[in-house]
Amino acid sequence: MTPLELIASLRATRHFTADPVAAGQLRAVLEAARWTGSARNRQPWRFVVVRDPALLGRLSRLGAYAGHLAGAPLAILLAVDATLSTQDAEFDAGRAAQNLMLAAHALGLGTCPASFFPAANAGTATELAGLPAPWRVRTAISLGHPAPAPPGASAIARGRHPLDVLVIEHPPRPAR
Amino acid sequence: MTPLELIASLRATRHFTADPVAAGQLRAVLEAARWTGSARNRQPWRFVVVRDPALLGRLSRLGAYAGHLAGAPLAILLAVDATLSTQDAEFDAGRAAQNLMLAAHALGLGTCPASFFPAANAGTATELAGLPAPWRVRTAISLGHPAPAPPGASAIARGRHPLDVLVIEHPPRPAR
Repeated sequence: MTPLELIASLRATRHFTADPVAAGQLRAVLEAARWTGSARNRQPWRFVVVRDPALLGRLSRLGAYAGHLAGAPLAILLAVDATLSTQDAEFDAGRAAQNLMLAAHALGLGTCPASFFPAANAGTATELAGLPAPWRVRTAISLGHPAPAPPGASAIARGRHPLDVLVIEHPPRPAR
Repeated sequence: MTPLELIASLRATRHFTADPVAAGQLRAVLEAARWTGSARNRQPWRFVVVRDPALLGRLSRLGAYAGHLAGAPLAILLAVDATLSTQDAEFDAGRAAQNLMLAAHALGLGTCPASFFPAANAGTATELAGLPAPWRVRTAISLGHPAPAPPGASAIARGRHPLDVLVIEHPPRPAR
């Protein structure tokens, strides 16, 4: 698979086998996140690795779409620096999440992000992560070996908009 | 270069040659952005391609670290859906930006994100992009062929924190 094929073929994995994630694979995935660029190279993140099934179960109930955390062998909580602007911190966190998920995909592992919301749930997730200020946890990423999804498992539409919907040339090129 | 090496070796490129970006390369980069996952597959983005040097110059003055836009052959403005929560939209925009920049890196092209701030500058960038509501432009990505950076070009520290700073095992593993 070429890098472009790898990037274009990443999909969310919400169902996992019971197989554990090897230590070397976890390290490679975290290493990809570590190297992510950020505004002014602030690296406004910490990565909390959670394996405890009871804790994963509690976290899975802190967001309407977080249920997949309960079935993953582990999750990585993305803690961001709450003293930065939300815009900057979340944009950079999205970059780190993408690096992490692409690295997992390259290794044959599956991932799915989960958002903790509303805000009170993000507060609870932050407490459960056990991190002091300024760290805030709003996102977790399930990580594991993909299992087949049960039929009818997701009602969310697949696919993507075509480029002619998504891309605007500015200023518009003159008609010829 | 393996996918993991590609991911870990992406760095910001702030200086570009005068060579144009080939249409096929631009398309491949936009295609990588197009396939990015997003919360509930909302794809809350549009990509505005700007080549006009005068417009790039104006945009380059809308953020304290946006100067590199003026020297790029083109920039891609990331427009996000302003009706969504800022957290959701910026996290997903960061994911798309990372896909786009990694694809460019795979093709030997360089990229650098720029943030338009304070908010009034993001408003001006949105107007210059010519998009109607709900689209809001807070981020642009320079794209081009890398040129050597002049000596002393950046005062921002390079490198990254080591994993033992960034990663927390939770609950902590008992000492043995």
